Parts: sequence; C-alpha cells; structure tokens
Amino acid sequence: MALMTPEQYKSSLRDGRAVFYRGEKVNDVTTHPVIGIAVAHAALDYRMAEDAKYRELAVIKDGGAEYSRYYYIPRNGGDLRKRSDLIAAATREGATLVVLIKEIGTDALYALTMIGDRMAAAGKPEYRERIAKFYRHCRDKDLAVCVAQTDVKGDRALGPTQQDHPDYYVRIVEERADGIVVRGAKVHTSVSTNSHEVIVLPTRAMKAEDKAYAVAFAVPVNTPGVKLIASPHGASHKNDFEHPISAKHKMMETLTVFDDVFVPKERVFLQGEIDYAGLLALTFVRFHRFTAVSYKLPLLEMLAGAGYAAAEANGILRANHVRDKLTHLAAYHTTVRGLIAHAAATCTIEEGVAVPNTLITNVAKYHFAHNYHQAVQIVQDLAGGLLVTGPAHEDLTSEATRNYVLKYMGGAKGFDAEKRLRLLNLVSDLTSSDYGGYQEVLAVHAEGGFEAEKLQAYREYDFKTVAAYARKIAGV
Amino acid sequence: MALMTPEQYKSSLRDGRAVFYRGEKVNDVTTHPVIGIAVAHAALDYRMAEDAKYRELAVIKDGGAEYSRYYYIPRNGGDLRKRSDLIAAATREGATLVVLIKEIGTDALYALTMIGDRMAAAGKPEYRERIAKFYRHCRDKDLAVCVAQTDVKGDRALGPTQQDHPDYYVRIVEERADGIVVRGAKVHTSVSTNSHEVIVLPTRAMKAEDKAYAVAFAVPVNTPGVKLIASPHGASHKNDFEHPISAKHKMMETLTVFDDVFVPKERVFLQGEIDYAGLLALTFVRFHRFTAVSYKLPLLEMLAGAGYAAAEANGILRANHVRDKLTHLAAYHTTVRGLIAHAAATCTIEEGVAVPNTLITNVAKYHFAHNYHQAVQIVQDLAGGLLVTGPAHEDLTSEATRNYVLKYMGGAKGFDAEKRLRLLNLVSDLTSSDYGGYQEVLAVHAEGGFEAEKLQAYREYDFKTVAAYARKIAGV
Amino acid sequence: MALMTPEQYKSSLRDGRAVFYRGEKVNDVTTHPVIGIAVAHAALDYRMAEDAKYRELAVIKDGGAEYSRYYYIPRNGGDLRKRSDLIAAATREGATLVVLIKEIGTDALYALTMIGDRMAAAGKPEYRERIAKFYRHCRDKDLAVCVAQTDVKGDRALGPTQQDHPDYYVRIVEERADGIVVRGAKVHTSVSTNSHEVIVLPTRAMKAEDKAYAVAFAVPVNTPGVKLIASPHGASHKNDFEHPISAKHKMMETLTVFDDVFVPKERVFLQGEIDYAGLLALTFVRFHRFTAVSYKLPLLEMLAGAGYAAAEANGILRANHVRDKLTHLAAYHTTVRGLIAHAAATCTIEEGVAVPNTLITNVAKYHFAHNYHQAVQIVQDLAGGLLVTGPAHEDLTSEATRNYVLKYMGGAKGFDAEKRLRLLNLVSDLTSSDYGGYQEVLAVHAEGGFEAEKLQAYREYDFKTVAAYARKIAGV
Amino acid sequence: MALMTPEQYKSSLRDGRAVFYRGEKVNDVTTHPVIGIAVAHAALDYRMAEDAKYRELAVIKDGGAEYSRYYYIPRNGGDLRKRSDLIAAATREGATLVVLIKEIGTDALYALTMIGDRMAAAGKPEYRERIAKFYRHCRDKDLAVCVAQTDVKGDRALGPTQQDHPDYYVRIVEERADGIVVRGAKVHTSVSTNSHEVIVLPTRAMKAEDKAYAVAFAVPVNTPGVKLIASPHGASHKNDFEHPISAKHKMMETLTVFDDVFVPKERVFLQGEIDYAGLLALTFVRFHRFTAVSYKLPLLEMLAGAGYAAAEANGILRANHVRDKLTHLAAYHTTVRGLIAHAAATCTIEEGVAVPNTLITNVAKYHFAHNYHQAVQIVQDLAGGLLVTGPAHEDLTSEATRNYVLKYMGGAKGFDAEKRLRLLNLVSDLTSSDYGGYQEVLAVHAEGGFEAEKLQAYREYDFKTVAAYARKIAGV
Repeated sequence: MALMTPEQYKSSLRDGRAVFYRGEKVNDVTTHPVIGIAVAHAALDYRMAEDAKYRELAVIKDGGAEYSRYYYIPRNGGDLRKRSDLIAAATREGATLVVLIKEIGTDALYALTMIGDRMAAAGKPEYRERIAKFYRHCRDKDLAVCVAQTDVKGDRALGPTQQDHPDYYVRIVEERADGIVVRGAKVHTSVSTNSHEVIVLPTRAMKAEDKAYAVAFAVPVNTPGVKLIASPHGASHKNDFEHPISAKHKMMETLTVFDDVFVPKERVFLQGEIDYAGLLALTFVRFHRFTAVSYKLPLLEMLAGAGYAAAEANGILRANHVRDKLTHLAAYHTTVRGLIAHAAATCTIEEGVAVPNTLITNVAKYHFAHNYHQAVQIVQDLAGGLLVTGPAHEDLTSEATRNYVLKYMGGAKGFDAEKRLRLLNLVSDLTSSDYGGYQEVLAVHAEGGFEAEKLQAYREYDFKTVAAYARKIAGV
Repeated sequence: MALMTPEQYKSSLRDGRAVFYRGEKVNDVTTHPVIGIAVAHAALDYRMAEDAKYRELAVIKDGGAEYSRYYYIPRNGGDLRKRSDLIAAATREGATLVVLIKEIGTDALYALTMIGDRMAAAGKPEYRERIAKFYRHCRDKDLAVCVAQTDVKGDRALGPTQQDHPDYYVRIVEERADGIVVRGAKVHTSVSTNSHEVIVLPTRAMKAEDKAYAVAFAVPVNTPGVKLIASPHGASHKNDFEHPISAKHKMMETLTVFDDVFVPKERVFLQGEIDYAGLLALTFVRFHRFTAVSYKLPLLEMLAGAGYAAAEANGILRANHVRDKLTHLAAYHTTVRGLIAHAAATCTIEEGVAVPNTLITNVAKYHFAHNYHQAVQIVQDLAGGLLVTGPAHEDLTSEATRNYVLKYMGGAKGFDAEKRLRLLNLVSDLTSSDYGGYQEVLAVHAEGGFEAEKLQAYREYDFKTVAAYARKIAGV
Repeated sequence: MALMTPEQYKSSLRDGRAVFYRGEKVNDVTTHPVIGIAVAHAALDYRMAEDAKYRELAVIKDGGAEYSRYYYIPRNGGDLRKRSDLIAAATREGATLVVLIKEIGTDALYALTMIGDRMAAAGKPEYRERIAKFYRHCRDKDLAVCVAQTDVKGDRALGPTQQDHPDYYVRIVEERADGIVVRGAKVHTSVSTNSHEVIVLPTRAMKAEDKAYAVAFAVPVNTPGVKLIASPHGASHKNDFEHPISAKHKMMETLTVFDDVFVPKERVFLQGEIDYAGLLALTFVRFHRFTAVSYKLPLLEMLAGAGYAAAEANGILRANHVRDKLTHLAAYHTTVRGLIAHAAATCTIEEGVAVPNTLITNVAKYHFAHNYHQAVQIVQDLAGGLLVTGPAHEDLTSEATRNYVLKYMGGAKGFDAEKRLRLLNLVSDLTSSDYGGYQEVLAVHAEGGFEAEKLQAYREYDFKTVAAYARKIAGV
Repeated sequence: MALMTPEQYKSSLRDGRAVFYRGEKVNDVTTHPVIGIAVAHAALDYRMAEDAKYRELAVIKDGGAEYSRYYYIPRNGGDLRKRSDLIAAATREGATLVVLIKEIGTDALYALTMIGDRMAAAGKPEYRERIAKFYRHCRDKDLAVCVAQTDVKGDRALGPTQQDHPDYYVRIVEERADGIVVRGAKVHTSVSTNSHEVIVLPTRAMKAEDKAYAVAFAVPVNTPGVKLIASPHGASHKNDFEHPISAKHKMMETLTVFDDVFVPKERVFLQGEIDYAGLLALTFVRFHRFTAVSYKLPLLEMLAGAGYAAAEANGILRANHVRDKLTHLAAYHTTVRGLIAHAAATCTIEEGVAVPNTLITNVAKYHFAHNYHQAVQIVQDLAGGLLVTGPAHEDLTSEATRNYVLKYMGGAKGFDAEKRLRLLNLVSDLTSSDYGGYQEVLAVHAEGGFEAEKLQAYREYDFKTVAAYARKIAGV
C-alpha cells in the first residue's frame, strides 16, 4: 500500500495502450500535445496527496499504511462530507475542471461493493470476493480508474436486442471457463486515456432477453482489444493569457471500444444476472451524482467570483442591476452548496455504506443543471462584449499594437489593461469558448440528463405522505 | 410558570381591548364571526401543548415547571431544528396557515435579548434587565405575543422626518421620568387581535435626525391608546366544503395605532439609541425569516400533495407532463426544506444564542418566494377549471340538483363526485380564492419582500473569497 | 333585424329557464343578488351598441338594417382586427372581465359555417342550410349565445365509451324522425345563465365507437331538460371600495345538464359524423383562442397600469428594481398584443372565412398563459402587503376609525389615504382575491390549457423547413 | 452606379489598410488564414446580388441603374419588411452568421440622413448635404461600410471627461479649416477588416463639457492613423466536418484606433453639437435593433431545425419531453419572427423615413436575448453528450478507427454514423464551441445589452394610458 508520485503516475501510462487521436495511434499519451495536458491535469491528484496543505484531506492513514481518501468507503455523513470537500478542493485546483481519475472509479467501487453484498446475501457469493480483491488492488496501488457506462445505444427508442446490429450495447459474446469475451462500445468515457483501469457497468435495467448485456467487469486500459478513440473537442492550441483555464486543464473523453476483449473470471462482476443490472447502474449513479454536485461547486464559485471581479474591473459594481445579477449568482451557488451538504448530512446507511440522500442529491443536481445556462448569461452580461472581441495575447507585446491596447483597454481605477483583459479572458474561457460549451453540455448531460434526474426525484419524493395530508385537510 | 389552556386563552382575550372591525368596536373578539375564527385557529397552540402527540415537541420541562418551547432560547442547531419542527407542526395543524402567536413574539424576544446584551456591553445595562424581566413574564404566563414592526411609512422614498407629517413612523412624543409617550401606527400586525402583548420594533436603521424614532417597547394589547383596526380581507362567510381551509382557519392583521400611548420605563427597550435601531430590526429579521421558511413547509407539502391528489382524482397521474409538473413541486418543496434544515445545522452562536445561518435562510426564503406563483400555476393546471366553476355545497344536497352533481362530477375510479369535489375545493381554497391571494401576497411581502431578501443575501455571501479565486485563476 | 336594448335583453331573460344557485331554482336571474351582477355586466354589450363612442366599432350597417359586429363573418385580416378591437373594448368597459355573450357564440357560428360548407362539399348538404338559418336567427334577433363544449369527462384517461357510465360525454340517446334526444352534461359553460341560446359542440375527436357522441346542436336556454347549475365561486357580497372590479362585474359558469333534451332536426348540426367532430372542435378553438387573446389585452393593460399607479402612490417609482419590474409588465403586454395583431394580419382565408393565423394565435395564448402568474407576482410586489391587510370601506367613514385611517394610510405626495387605498384595492381585487384566483385559473385553463396550446403550436410550426435548413448546413 | 462583383470586392480590400492580427500587420486580408474566411463570408453579399434566386430581393433597379437594396431608404412598412427579409436571407446563406457589411452601414446612413434633416431644419444645413453625398458615394460604388460606435469607455461609471485620460471616448483634438483631427478608440467594430468605409458615431448622449466628444464622421478604412487590431476569438483552424458553420463563416471584430486621424470637412457629420449626439446614437440603434432581430431569425430557425433533426437522428422524436422542448423552440422562433414583422408593419414615418416600431423592436430584441441561453440548453439536451465527446473527422477515414466509428455511431433508422455525426457536429458548432460562445455573447451584448433594451422599452411603452385606465377603474 503506497501512494504514487505524479512522476510514477505519468510513467505508468506508457503501457502500450491503444489510444487514437484524429485517426492516429498515440505513442505516448504523456507527451501528446493534447492528451498530455489532460495527463498533467490529472496528475494534480497525486500532487495534492504530496501537498502539506491537502495531505490530511487527501490521504487516509491506516496504521502504517496510507491510501487516497477516495478509496475510503464512507460510513457516515461526515465521511461523505470530507469526500465532497476533497472533490471540490481538487476541482478548485483544476481551475473548475474536475480531476475525476479516482472520483468516478470509487463511485463505481462503492456501488459494486454494495451490489456484491446483496448478491452474496441472495446466494451468489463469488462476486463479492472478486470485487473486494479488485478494490484492494486499486486502493493499494493508488490507481487511476475510469468508468465506462453509457452504451452507444443506436436508436435510443429501442432496447439492446432490437437494434440494427446486436453490438449497440456492450455484451458477452463468449462465456469460457476462465472468463468471458465482450464486444461493444461505450461513449463519453472520461479520463480513460490516462487511467490505469476501466470499470464497465451496465447503462440501464435489463429484460429477460437482454441476458448477454447484463455484464460488469474491469480490465486494465492496455488490455488487448480495448481501443480508445479520443474526442478532439476543444483541443486547439491555446495560450494561457486568452485561455487561463483550458490552456492548462483538460479532460479527455473517448469512444471506448471492446473489440472481443477477454476478461478473466476474477474481473467479472456481473454475468447475466439481469435483476442486478439496473440496480447496479442506479447505485453507481446515487454516488456519482453526489460526486457531480461536489465538483460543480468550484464552477459556481467561479461564476460568482468571475462575475464580481469582471464587474469591478468594468466599474459597474454599484449599478443596481449588477447587484441583482450578482445576488442571483450567489443564491445559485449557495443553494447547490447547501443542498449537497444536506445530502451528506441526511445520508442513509445501506450495507454498511453511507449513501448520500438520493432525493436531495438529485434535486441539487437538477437545480444546478437547470439554472446553469442562465448563470452563464449573467456572467457574460457582467463582463461585456470584449469576451469575444478582445485583442490577442501578442497584441500586448508587439511594438505595433501594445501601446494602443495598454492605453485603451483599461477599466476602473486599479484595473489596467492587462489586469482587466486577464479577468475578461477568464470569463471568456469559462463561458464563451469551446471550454464554455463543454461545461454547458456537461451541465445538461453528465451523470444523467434532466429527465433522469427528474425521474429519480419523482420516485424518491414522498408523495404518499403529502397526498395524505391533502386528503386529510380536504376531508376525504 | 404554567401553561395556559385553550379556554383560559380565549377568556383572557376579553380584556377591553380596542379592536375595530368594519368601523365598529368589537365587544368580544372570541365570539366575533370573523375574528372568532382567528381566535379558534390561534388556540391550536394551546391545544397542541395538551396533546400527547405534540407534548414533547411543544413543551419544555424545566425542573418541576413547564413552558412552551417557543420560549426556549436556542443554544445550538438542534434547538433551532426543533423550533422549526414545532412551527411546521403547528402550521400543519393549521391547515397551511401559521399560528404565529408565539413564533413571532419569541423571534423578537431573542433579538431583544441579544441587543440588550450588546447594549449592556457597551455601557447601557438597563435594557438587558428590563428585557429579561419581560421575557420571563411572557414565558411564565404562556402569553401570546405579536410584533408591530412595519411603520406606515407615507412616501416610501422619504425618511421619517421628511414626511408630510411626523407620525408616519412611530415616535416618542414625550419623555417622562416614569416612561415615554409614543405616537404613530404600524401596519400588517399579524395576530394582534388575539395576542396578550404587542412588541414594537423599529422598521429600519435610523439617522441622527431620527432619534425620536429609535424606539422599541412592549405593552399589553389592551393598553389605553392602542387601537387595532382589523383588515376584512377574505372574511366573507364560508362553508367548509367549498373552503376546507379558510372556513376554519384565519389570521387577522391590523393597522395598529398608538394614539399617545404611555409606556412605563420597564417596558421601554430602546429610547433614542439610533445605532441600535437598524441592528435590532435586522436581528429580529434574522430569526423571523427562519420562522417564516419553517412555517412555509406545510404550504409546500400541501401544494405537492394537493396537486398529486387532484391529478389522481382527475385520472391524469400517468401523463408525462403531469409527472413533470409534480416533480417540479417536489423539487421546490425539497429545496426549501433542505435549505432551512441546513440553515439550522450551520447556525452561528452569538451572545450565546444560536442564530440560523443568515445567508442560507435568506436564500431559502428567496427561493420560496420567487417560485411560489409558478407552483400555484402548476397546481391550478393539474386540478382543472372546476376550481372556479364547480358547484356549491348545497348542490350536493338539494333534491333539485344532487343527482346531477353526483352523476356528472365523478372522476377516476375510486373518486366519486363528492370526493373529487372536496379535493378540487381544497385546491381552489388554497390557490384560487381570497385565501389563495392572501398566501400569494404573504409569499411576496411577509418577513421582508424580494428586495430585502436579495440585499441580505448579497451582503452575507462571501464575494471576497470567490473573487479572489477568480483573480488567482486569471493570474492577476 | 334589429338591435336589442339593454332593457329588452334583461326582460328577455325572464323566460322560465332552469337555473339553480346553491341548490335552489332561481326565479329571475336579472334580480338575483349574484347572477344579477352578471346580467348587468353582460348588458354592457347592448349598451355599447347604443353608445356613440362605440357605435361604429360595435354595429354593422347592412343597407337599412343594423346588426352587431360580432355577427359579421370576417373576410380578411382587417375584419379580424376590428373584431379583436371590439372584444378588447368591451372587456375594457367590463373592467378586465370579458363580456362574452356574443364573442364565444360567433366563434362557434364561424366554425359551424365552415364545417357546414365542408360537409356540403362532401355530400352532406343539409347541415349547411340549418346552420345558416340558425346564424341569421341569432344575428337578426341580436341574441346572446353561449357555447357548451367541455364534457364532464369522468376519468380523463378514458374515452367516452370506456367510462363508468355512458353519459360522461354528451350523447344522442334517441334518434327520431323529427330530431334527436340528447343526454349528458358540460362544464365551464360561461354566460349560460344569461344567454338566449346554447350551442353544443363536441369536445374532441371521436373514434368509430363514439358515433353517438359526435353531436352538435343549439337550443334555447329555456328548453325543457336543460338545467344550469351555477358555480358560487367568488360570489360573496362585495362593496366597490374594496372590490372595484368584482363588485360590479361578474361572469357565471354552469354545469350544464342535458337531461334527455329533445333537439329538433333543424337545430342539429352534427349527428354521428365522427370525422367532423374533431375538426369542428378544433375549428371553433382556432377562432376562440383569437377571441381569448383579444379579451386578455385589457387585463394586461391593467396589470401594467395598476402596477405603475400603485408604485407611484407608494412613492417607489424611481427605484431601479421597480422600473425593471414595470418594464417586464410592459414587455409582456406588448408581446401578446403584437402577436395577436400579427395573427390577424397573417390570417388565412378558408371557405371564404378569415381564420386567424393558428400558429401565432396559439403562441400568443401560450405566452399569455405561461407568464400570467409571474406578472401577478410583480404587481403584488409593487403594491405592497396592504393588499391583504388594509382597512375596510367602513373604516374610512366610521367616527371611531376614520381619522386614523386618513392620517396613516397616505402615500406619496398627491396620494391621500383614500386615493391610495382605492388603487391598492384595485390591485387586491385584481390579483389577491377570489376574482384574482378566477383570472389565474382562466389564464391556465380557459380556451384550452397549456398542453392543448403546445400541441397545436407543435403541429402548426413548420419543422420540415427548419429541419431541412439544418440538414443542408450540416451537409447531409 | 454599378454593383461590385465578389472578385472586385476582394481585390478592393488590398488597399494598404492597417490591420493587425496577433500583433502583426496583415499584408493581404483576403488571403489571411483567419480574416480570409471573413472576407469570403462577406463576399456572400455580392454573390447574392448576382444570384437569380435573390436578385429581385437584393437589387433595386432605378431606371437603368442598379444598386443594393440595403441602400434603399425605406419609405413604408413594406420596404422595411423586404429589408428584413433580405437580411434574413443573407444570414441564412451565411449559415446563421450575419453578413453585415451593408446592413449596419445603412442603419447608420438612415440615422444620419434623419439627423441631418433635423439639423438643417434647426439652422445647420451643411451636414445634410455632406451626408447625402456620402450616402450616394457608398450606394453608387456598392461599398461595404462598417460602424464604429462603442467607445472603449475606461471606467464605465464615469463620463468622457472624468476618466484617467481624455481619450477613452473618441474626441476631436484639433479643429482645422479643412477638417478635424480625431483621437480615441472604439471596440467591437464588426466587419471593419473587410469594409471600405468606417462610419463613426457617438456612443451616448453628451453633456456640455463633452463638446469635443460629440463627433460623427466617416473615413475610408485605409486612412492614415486608422488601426484595426483584430480579435482572435474562435480563430483556431477548423475542418468543416466538425465545424460545419464556423469553418467557412466568420466575422471579424476589431479594436479600432483613431491615432490622430484627419477627417476632411465633407466627411464630418457632427462636430460639437452635443444636443444631437444622443439623438444620433439612439436613432441609429432604432434601425440597428431591427436589423439585429432580422438577422437572428435564421439562428432561431436553426436552433429549432437542428434540435428537431438531432432528436430524429437519436430516435427520440416521439418522447413527450422532446415534443415539449421542440415546442418551446418553435414558440421562441415564432414569437421573435412575429414581433419583428409587426414592428415593420407598425412603423412610423419620420422625416420621410420608415422607422420600425421602436417599442416592438426592443421587446422583440429583449425576448430574443433573454431566452437565447435557455434555447441553447434545450438543443444541447436534445442532441446529447456526443456534442463534446464525439470522434474527429479523421476517425471516419483512418484505417485504424473508421470501422469502429461507422459501426458504433449510428442512430435511428436512416441515420448512419456519418449522417448522425454531421448533425451532432452542427449542433456542437452552433452551441458548444467558440462559435456557440460567440453567438451567446452577441445575444447578450450586440446592438445594446439587456439594460439598454429594457430602458428603451420602458420609455416607449405608454404607461400614461394604462395607468389612466387603472385609475379610472379604481375610481380615483
């Protein structure tokens, strides 16, 4: 049991993995001009563990050994709160971009642990042991773990077996004595290019005919047959004057193909038990939406903070409408933050694991997601049109242009041109660029979209009690 | 120290108080056709204290003595939570209408206690003693106490001394050795017609020229010169089939006139200390908005519950848009409830008193207020046009009409005409009637309107930290 | 062909009609304390025709004869615009309450005329003649005509034949040589208590098994077997100080029962032609939503005007947030008004009749309905808590109270207590009372609710063209 | 008088103009990798004039001569409507990006023409003649004309003379017999890199002390001292598979510096007449917001169309929530389109020029701007997470990846991987990229932000009439 250093992390990624970028195989993800940024960003996790400032939050001491707090299974609301704080702290270091290389993996490990227990209680003890072993493996080696859940799905109105071809959902194509062979592909797999292991979970509840699709497992990312086709979204070359966030912080998503991949028995966590497929998917999501809201907090801090700082630089902080808009941003942040803290405080203990209050978590997530674009609108409003019409980095240094830029781009007292432009560029990068678009789409889709959150909230809310109250007062 | 019974409460109100209803002096508020309903509603407080179901929540045992929990000064988050629960429970018994005869008075007493301590620390010890004595008087006699805070204000763009006449804000007109004489009027004084004592607080911060207006005190409601002119809003005769809430539950508001009222020294709590006027006003509000959100919870339960029950009665529960709307109501309730619980949990201890987190409380209140009308719209949408076109109570019993009504007003299986109409009438009373309008206006104005809540949230939110974060990432 | 006088109108309503109010048969609707207000309100229509100020707008001269413009079948956008202007003018006279005794009936007559033509073209010529004759009857006698469309429906998830009993939708129970016998009941029938004729239309498209339910006809309101059970909503006694609108203006809705009513052949307009049932329902609605938006305009003027006047009386007109809120009200009114004018200008001519642009009309209606409650919230915000806590009419005249009220209820310069209270009472009546609730429910439900408007807008919008544009730019 | 060809347009831009990109002087804007795209986009204007499909709309025949319709001064609502249609058609060709090289310039020319007339009527005839001459020059040479209005402003809370240096607003530094010398800079100058002339207008009303700042004029873009510092926003290299819009369509904005530029008398249109500065600014905006809403229509068509097409490709078109969201997009587009048509139809004729209804135009603009981000959210919701996680162009052609992409990225029947990805990439480019951010910021800021639109709507709305109506009904 030992923590990895950032350097060990980076070198461990040179393992022959099949990552493709713009159609070409990537020899070394750590030095790739785009993926390398994502690797450096992810290394933040390992840096924080070494940083005295974060050590207590980030590292669990277990006797003489140490391991990352992410791998600590929460037993009560306080544990959940610390986990939430760590996720937020890491994202804050990531300049509003989540790190995620342990967050999502441990969400899946918690869920697997619970479902393994349940299956054991129901007479299927073998999975529990395998899961526990895999959990120790990840924890003790301090691994980065991604989760591939969303199947490519084909026609979204149809189930796995009704599609044009049978591989639109990942499935077992062969069952062998020593393991299984799987085929299919998952989308939106975050941080896969720079994780050590990939956990595969079913994306939804399965029916009787979907037995081959009720499958969960984990394999090293460099397993033969695993192909990662990375998305180029937002990957143009950037300087950190114009793009103070995205020039240095990046997360990769892949189309993750399982081209007849062999998974040894000990890494198979679900193999045809259709009754547990939906439950596993859902249990993962119960943890993962809590993670999601936790990592959104720095983004909301930044919207309020950048809105305030930009308004100040522009000299409009005292205008009435500006206060009104800033108050809206403050209330937005405060509401989401308050709800997620409350979700931790009102967790339930299931199979010995503290599960964040599912209703509150979903309501928090919904509130975040539903109001995000409006908050973006407000921040863009406060910052002004220069977000998309401002000068370039080089315009501040070139002989031909710098005097003009320095003279004319100044703002309120105390805000010279460079200072003001840096603040406006922050807002531009955050809200009005590829990165801004990335965050908008994440707000809408990541960890389940609007409809998923609403469905979950509907199910969790206690309509029975409130309807009984209404009936009592109505006298029926 | 003894709890009052409901009967003692009622008879204690026959004390010669000067209450006017539609221009006429009311001889006995307890038997008045309108105010009597409010008295009966208020008596709920005393009934709950006797009710085994609520006894533990409602009553504090202090050695051999007992007193109402409302009079228990909260020392930690748990105390605040219990207070919140009690307020909600009483309002639930009140069929969504707050009881308020101790809630608001104790909000003021907590604030006075804290400000008394502060003034004592600043070298003005006399108020602390008077306040403590008055507090024990109210607690030990189990009194109903109202608070008159909002001055009539005249032209709202002008301060107290700039008005057409000097009495638009309550002021001291004479300072005597044994006390003061006050003149002026307050509006929106809730439950005054049926309280024992009225506490008067300043409505805002005062300037140097406003010394005479920096005044706080308490007097019995039947003090000579105190005149209560009651509002007739929503006071038409109602049957409880058509008005299941408002036929039995009512709160009175008055224009509360102080026509040269003498207040003895021991009842004067602020006399010209302009620096404490605004602070006292604000401190009261810090407690009172927490009370407010607490008593809104049953209203939000009812909106969700009545919306659900009405949709069920109409047979539309499975429609997609109906689920969507119900989810919205559920999220609305859950958000406000979660935030207020969080406000208790994150209270601060000031002068030994637990003060609910002011930022969270204001954000909760704002969320409640801002979204109330939309929730009403949803419930009206789910219930249907019969809210305002349905038959009368008598139509279900008259020979001439009942067969038609019983035959044609039925709904989904299990919902005969009477059952369905009762549910729809509940929604009608709740949302589409004088009572519905009353609740809408309360949502907007009670305990400070939108702008007050926004201002408070703006001030409490930590812009400094988030702006520093933005600047750090921007590199400035 | 002659116009009726207001007096003739009133006396014509004493015709033995079976109107029930609170279980009792009403002998004379014109003198009934509640329905009499609705009669007086409706008589506005006849008064306007006599009023020089409105004569040109309200009356069509056809050679020597004259008839109400409502009965003029629109042939172009200008005709629709004048009709819209007349509806708005009448509603403005009605203090924001629509008059409706000709508006709705002629909406139905236009639709019947068009469907009669279509059925004639399809080989069913008899209806066209009957409809034309009935149209001339109504026009030439200047009759008040209501429309009963919404069936009681029972379980709204089930069709007419699937219900607990077969009469949840109005149906033909006997077909005779000289006519038909109908049974069933309609809800929400506005102005039926004081109309001369009632037109019955199907409420939805019918299937093969619903043949008996595909029925349309018209009968005099006093026809044997027609029973009107009036709703008591908002019918408490009111003075016009506290209720400047609703003390004098009222519309009645009834549960309209057809208890085996015989309809002679010449008054039957649809008898089993299931293919035309839905079309007729829809065609009526295409006109009726245009009427609806037209009559909402004075309500929106009033929200903006009352909001402005109340803010002025309170002395807050110059506050920034007040301007913001007033601008919102102005934009709301302007948007709805602009769209409905545009709907007239872009009408289509079908069967020689000018039909308002259905897409624009539905979008206008949706915009109105969707934003109404928020506008109410704003006006309540601007007016203040006195909306529900202000003094009574008698408090201004009673010796005991008037000096207090006159002294303390004053507002900004130029607004003494009475003036200010009258303005606030206007807002209270408009938004925070039974009448306010009535308008809210009408906004949501009248002329088809949210879902109906959305469905219609979805169908009418040209997705084909815009999707083709998207595909072209996408290169597919 | 002759129309320019696209080729003539391009070659005419090689005129020695001082354009800077990333600190370097650009030798030839037409071949510059970034600005060249903007030139090609702008050339659409000249191509449309040659295109038989658009000729009638785009070209005015005046005797034997022809000129662009943009230069036709509107005399009635029909003219405005055609202008609006032309602007929309050009933007549609521009794949949702406005062309603007004549739209904005003629907005300014209309305003200058009107103000010139007014000044002549007020005894200052010289400007009228100069303006008319300049107008003919632009029209007869078929020139591209940009407008520089927004001053850099420095501290936005301060006026021109209160700033840290006097040049934060463009001002006259020398008045000579033959002209004036101007200094200062303007921001957000669209299409300046590829226009022939730049018109400079004041940005706001001026006070007595601001005389030097009350200046308007026009100069060729290549005038000595005019320096254009181009913004690099969104200028990374793009392929048209991933960026079907922005790979081929671009608009440039510049910081436009006037470094002691000499303007000859005949090109000076305002020289110290402070009373006309605000009026000129406002009159320009009255036309320009009409232009703005006109060019937003294809964007709104595209949101609805792309949302529909993407939902179809994903196989979710029949889901209830999808219909709901599409209806919202349809209503949004329909409302804005309807209002702008109505603004043309209800124009006023001032100084012989048809001015679009200012209230309606501002309300339309506000409705567009206020709801834009929500519409983006909806389209992102319908399209799915692949917007930011999808594969690259090269992944569809590379041996290593194409089979996986083709197999797994397919959607609903009829939508193979390429077709579906092209549709999703369209949505990504439109909403979730630099271009999406650009459109968001334009929605908020271009042609005046939220507060400007609200202020204008507040001023134009007839509060007097609606308040009088309220007072009448209130009886005051």
